[in-house]
Amino acid sequence: MIIEVWSDVVCPWCYIGKRRLEKALAAFPHADDVEVVWRSYQLDAGAPVTPTETVAESLGRKYGGGEAAGRRMIDNVEAVAAEEGLVYRLHQAQRANTVDAHRLLHLALAEGGPVRQGALKEALLAAYFTEARNVADHAVLRAVATSAGLAADRVDAVLAGEEYRDEVWADIEQAQAFGAGGVPFFVVDRKYGVSGAQPVEVFTQVLERAWADTHPVLEMVPGGDACGPDGCEV
Amino acid sequence: MIIEVWSDVVCPWCYIGKRRLEKALAAFPHADDVEVVWRSYQLDAGAPVTPTETVAESLGRKYGGGEAAGRRMIDNVEAVAAEEGLVYRLHQAQRANTVDAHRLLHLALAEGGPVRQGALKEALLAAYFTEARNVADHAVLRAVATSAGLAADRVDAVLAGEEYRDEVWADIEQAQAFGAGGVPFFVVDRKYGVSGAQPVEVFTQVLERAWADTHPVLEMVPGGDACGPDGCEV
Repeated sequence: MIIEVWSDVVCPWCYIGKRRLEKALAAFPHADDVEVVWRSYQLDAGAPVTPTETVAESLGRKYGGGEAAGRRMIDNVEAVAAEEGLVYRLHQAQRANTVDAHRLLHLALAEGGPVRQGALKEALLAAYFTEARNVADHAVLRAVATSAGLAADRVDAVLAGEEYRDEVWADIEQAQAFGAGGVPFFVVDRKYGVSGAQPVEVFTQVLERAWADTHPVLEMVPGGDACGPDGCEV
Repeated sequence: MIIEVWSDVVCPWCYIGKRRLEKALAAFPHADDVEVVWRSYQLDAGAPVTPTETVAESLGRKYGGGEAAGRRMIDNVEAVAAEEGLVYRLHQAQRANTVDAHRLLHLALAEGGPVRQGALKEALLAAYFTEARNVADHAVLRAVATSAGLAADRVDAVLAGEEYRDEVWADIEQAQAFGAGGVPFFVVDRKYGVSGAQPVEVFTQVLERAWADTHPVLEMVPGGDACGPDGCEV
């Protein structure tokens, strides 16, 4: 089974949804046969590389009410994050572009596979939400990526060029093709979609259903007239 | 979609089930995307190549009541066959082995594909049930197979040797693995099983369900908290 998760590095519900999916997987008996792959999504492709405002300011500007309103929104989501054991420091965080982070996530997947990519995804989310670091900054990205086991020379080469930019756009287009209006957006075996950070039980149900699909016992319609070793029903 | 049908050439319910499946397929809007493959099953692997008794005698011996009881069983199944437009002449038919017929069905599939195999299957059933011919006899098999478009030299080579014998046994083992207690036994996309000659509506329902499975729209669980272009739900 493969679970693809469309997600952004700066999306508060994405980290929360990641934890809920992980809880469901921890209790899932066939978790060893499940591969999780992270797909790119940019909530705010216009965000700058060098921050110009805090997250609170950005939210207040976007939705009205100013920084104070932004701070209340942050308080709300931090409370939910705390329930999942996540420490958010979004009051310190700054609005930043994520395209380079996503390019590194593609590098991790291509050259290290899903496990390496998963380590980088977790490290990037922690860097932004818990450490309030600028995940657009190349020095930050380099430190986070190498701590997650990526080769420094490849990280540098990707950051210096345009590698994996097309893959990032292709992911975003795929999400739109699936009708995802936002993230996190979970797709299991390209068959089931889960929109948003749903309760653990929802992930559990979808996992069980997808597993049954790929490990079918014949669904039988018994009882028709037939001939067997002991003769025909006549 | 692929429909595999475990079936024997001398099985009265198999020909009836074939007609019912065909009726369902004739009304199925995606029939062009359905492939029907015939799998081997032997109801009576101990039957002789050179017949020693009529079907009526064989039935009477096996279930008691003698030839008269056998004739009543034949009358019953012939009445059902007639409802499907099939003319059975089982009173004239003789008990005969079908392993060579099944080997030719494998030849037809391997070298001519499902359409050729389907033509041979129909011709063999007609030869046995309507024409009361001995489908164990190599001259009969040769005539039937070549009339269905098989190459005479390949038919002769297969009949003279042991080709496709393993494939016949493998089919029978697969049927047992699926829990088929008799034939006809229909398997759609290795997901749905239909045991016996069921009504046309049952085939229609299974076809529709299997089609929906292989042409999925994402089954969505909507409504979780998410972040979109217009912000996060906080």
